[in-house]
Amino acid sequence: MMSTNSEPSTRTIGVLGGMGPAAAADFARRIVDTTDANLDQEHLHVIVDNDPRVPDRTQALRGVGPSPVPCIAAMARRLEGAGAELLVMACNTAHAFYEEVAVAASVPLVDLIDAAARGVAAQVPGIRRVGLLATDGTLLSQVYERAFARQDVDVILPDAGAQVRLMETIYGAVKSGARDLGPARDTVLTLGQGLVDAGAQAILLACTELSVLAAQEPLCWPVPTFDAAQLGAEDVIRRAGGRVRGRET
Amino acid sequence: MMSTNSEPSTRTIGVLGGMGPAAAADFARRIVDTTDANLDQEHLHVIVDNDPRVPDRTQALRGVGPSPVPCIAAMARRLEGAGAELLVMACNTAHAFYEEVAVAASVPLVDLIDAAARGVAAQVPGIRRVGLLATDGTLLSQVYERAFARQDVDVILPDAGAQVRLMETIYGAVKSGARDLGPARDTVLTLGQGLVDAGAQAILLACTELSVLAAQEPLCWPVPTFDAAQLGAEDVIRRAGGRVRGRET
Repeated sequence: MMSTNSEPSTRTIGVLGGMGPAAAADFARRIVDTTDANLDQEHLHVIVDNDPRVPDRTQALRGVGPSPVPCIAAMARRLEGAGAELLVMACNTAHAFYEEVAVAASVPLVDLIDAAARGVAAQVPGIRRVGLLATDGTLLSQVYERAFARQDVDVILPDAGAQVRLMETIYGAVKSGARDLGPARDTVLTLGQGLVDAGAQAILLACTELSVLAAQEPLCWPVPTFDAAQLGAEDVIRRAGGRVRGRET
Repeated sequence: MMSTNSEPSTRTIGVLGGMGPAAAADFARRIVDTTDANLDQEHLHVIVDNDPRVPDRTQALRGVGPSPVPCIAAMARRLEGAGAELLVMACNTAHAFYEEVAVAASVPLVDLIDAAARGVAAQVPGIRRVGLLATDGTLLSQVYERAFARQDVDVILPDAGAQVRLMETIYGAVKSGARDLGPARDTVLTLGQGLVDAGAQAILLACTELSVLAAQEPLCWPVPTFDAAQLGAEDVIRRAGGRVRGRET
């Protein structure tokens, strides 16, 4: 229909959002910022569906809330209808439902968890232990344990008390849209340091709400720090036929 | 189909993006951040089409490039097909084509320019002169001059030399994705101060690329400063049936 795109072989990306509301906009922004392009017209075509009605993923995994799959699958169909040729869920926890969503979609669904685990392993050669900051739902589903096991990397988690504080930070500060995210940052920094003290050789921020926090000002520890949303965005760009800025030419 | 939304009377917002690539993600993020909501599920449903193939708006208005209207109209139809009930263009310059796009759409198209002019006039009672930082395309179309005339406000523009530097900043730094936007910020701050010195009683950032710049760190002058994207986002939230955070309850 239109033929002004300089990369005719690229695929339109559909971002399944609303988990939470800020995460999909942050993810779309990462795709733009990470694409190697000098002109507007050299960027990838991205369609974002930010449907806030998606039921809470952790609640569903705990068995105390409805499944998010019908709502996510409906988004996938809307995005495909609008032309998406490659889908990605801008939510780590939702990947507990990866298989169900992938089956409902008729175009490929990128696996953010696998992309993050491969990214960390590739960038820290010989790594044996990664510290994971994620929601209770993500921990319950053990998606990261399985993905890192394929890379021969063990996952170190916060202790129960620290994990409770992490969930409080994600839900009480980032998701509720607190104006001052300083205390949330301090909490996450302390929790990450605990993982470093416990032997983590890298830290992975594995919740797109933590990615939103890190996008405002980087979260840094004395070991390499990664963001699943960023590693996922890079994977999506490559799969869509784009060029990742600064890593390859 | 789904009925978990706590605000069943809200309308799904469709954001016409790709002008430039970062602007639509920034605009979507403003809608999330400006919506008064405590839970994910209280946010508005927003679908963003970030199609980078939209031809340059200023080039078209100068008569040296193709019209962006067919591409924007195609986005409008895709968004309507995906369920959008209210559309908005995340680009000030594109509003030169407002009538043509509105005719092509079968749902209402929010007028960002008018929302911005009304917002400035409402928040600075008695204002007579506003300083405008916008693209050459926006100036050529005189959309802001007409919108502010309806509010009895005169528009003050940079002189020709300053305007050339502004365009260089928008195209050479923000659109090209420069890592260090410090020099761009300094240029815009100097240009805005020139408008204040010339009698502007408020400054309006009237280009969504400048909004992207201001989102990283506020641009401030010794007069009230407004961002057309922010005023537009507030207008869109109200029209979609949402509540604007901090301004009304």
